[in-house]
Amino acid sequence: MRLITLGTSSGKPTLERNVSAVAVDRDGEMLLFDCGEGTQNQIRRARLRLSRLSRIFITHLHGDHVNGLTGLISTLSLDGRDRPLELYSPPGIKEYIEVSRRLQIFHLRFELNITELDSAGVAYDGEEYKVICRPLDHSLFDLGYAIVEKDRPGTFDVEKARQLGIEAGPIYRSLKAGEDVTLADGRIIKSSEVVGPPHPGKRVAYCTDTRPCQSAVELARCADLLVHEGTYADELADKATQRGHSTVVDAARIAQEAQAKRLIITHISPKHRDETDRLLAQARAVFRNCQIAYDLMKVEV
Amino acid sequence: MRLITLGTSSGKPTLERNVSAVAVDRDGEMLLFDCGEGTQNQIRRARLRLSRLSRIFITHLHGDHVNGLTGLISTLSLDGRDRPLELYSPPGIKEYIEVSRRLQIFHLRFELNITELDSAGVAYDGEEYKVICRPLDHSLFDLGYAIVEKDRPGTFDVEKARQLGIEAGPIYRSLKAGEDVTLADGRIIKSSEVVGPPHPGKRVAYCTDTRPCQSAVELARCADLLVHEGTYADELADKATQRGHSTVVDAARIAQEAQAKRLIITHISPKHRDETDRLLAQARAVFRNCQIAYDLMKVEV
Repeated sequence: MRLITLGTSSGKPTLERNVSAVAVDRDGEMLLFDCGEGTQNQIRRARLRLSRLSRIFITHLHGDHVNGLTGLISTLSLDGRDRPLELYSPPGIKEYIEVSRRLQIFHLRFELNITELDSAGVAYDGEEYKVICRPLDHSLFDLGYAIVEKDRPGTFDVEKARQLGIEAGPIYRSLKAGEDVTLADGRIIKSSEVVGPPHPGKRVAYCTDTRPCQSAVELARCADLLVHEGTYADELADKATQRGHSTVVDAARIAQEAQAKRLIITHISPKHRDETDRLLAQARAVFRNCQIAYDLMKVEV
Repeated sequence: MRLITLGTSSGKPTLERNVSAVAVDRDGEMLLFDCGEGTQNQIRRARLRLSRLSRIFITHLHGDHVNGLTGLISTLSLDGRDRPLELYSPPGIKEYIEVSRRLQIFHLRFELNITELDSAGVAYDGEEYKVICRPLDHSLFDLGYAIVEKDRPGTFDVEKARQLGIEAGPIYRSLKAGEDVTLADGRIIKSSEVVGPPHPGKRVAYCTDTRPCQSAVELARCADLLVHEGTYADELADKATQRGHSTVVDAARIAQEAQAKRLIITHISPKHRDETDRLLAQARAVFRNCQIAYDLMKVEV
């Protein structure tokens, strides 16, 4: 899994930072979290392939998180997409999409499936991963998300299986699937004898825009990576609270409490232009393994 | 008057060309024609000042001409704008703005006055210039615009007035205003004796998206500058007609028929990437004083 921060500014774009969007490239499939104005071009700049986009998750309906949506959908139509696209968002998005489409702001030439989410739960549950969500604490109803990969079966030890005199075939498959097997000669082979421990799935949480809150901690619990907003420097904590945002230190505290392995802080206020080092020092004093996001930053998970 | 092509691509942005928007910087006042996704950042890249924006004119509601609108309005609010902004557009924009605002996609902290235009007429009539509009010929109701500056009074010849024995004061003002004046000694001084011929106002027309049509010719009649779409190369004339667009040769023919002084061709299809020279040659064979627009091109009028 590889995460790319496409836009890292809060409120409005600047020449250095575009507005919110995060792409996750997972085994060739692209997930998009938020879609601020200009996201489709950020996707091009990151050399990601729009055709691989399968799901979009929106945190909330403020424009700096959704204004790129209808343009992106329009481009997918122009590009001849024919497979469905899944869109998950707080309520209101259906009306927005419907009105925009009726006014011909965009044309839709593929199936767009919209799921409006109004509470904590599972947004998507697939074979290899699920995406869970929880309401955060912003000035507008806002969801945090976490990608939770399912554990993959452990590695099958072919050499050991051979030593035990097991031939390749259906028995292999049963053992790989975790089943114990009775051989023709009466021996019982436990799956665990030839299959290593399961590979644990990764967990990536995305929490913006929000005051520091317990839901963010839950989403980030033991996560391999937490992407959390840190709109303001520590000394602007009052402003952050008032506007429904976090400081970089709040973000670090959430990562610490959740025992996340790594933190990327995004959604940086334009007022902190050229202050990345100072913001980073404030956050690292609380949580060491942390970085301030920049546009098109690539993070391997 | 200075015109800046902020976005010159048709349909979708590319890394070379953003979607439609044209800024006109007129005596420190900024007018904006169309506002595709990313326009606010193009304005920053062009080093124009958003605070000087007074009027926005939208040609039609396709997203590549309006998707940057709510983000721009949001940024003006964040920047603390308190003076009104005037928005002119085909019908539908009020509903779009209203729904977007109710869903909190943007917050409005200044007066936004919306004029929906559904036929040919005068969109704005001010002291120094007016903006007229005419429906063009696209797949969706679409308006072309022309900025028509009013003639300014001719230069007052102070030296000559002095020779005629006229003293500075109210008589100067009357003569400057075009009135003939009877002096105390009974002499009649004609305004034209001391005031040169009026300085003719400039005319700039903006016509996109459209098939070649008579309304575009009327808007561009004797214009100092015509900005006209030329989505496709000449050999794709059928496609242009089918999709409600013009070829670069169509644009050149409009400029020629209108006896415009200069032509800038914009709204270039992404399929013609790296073909600017070829497009230009096709257009120039018909109308010599012409250029293919590029993003952030500055044109003095």
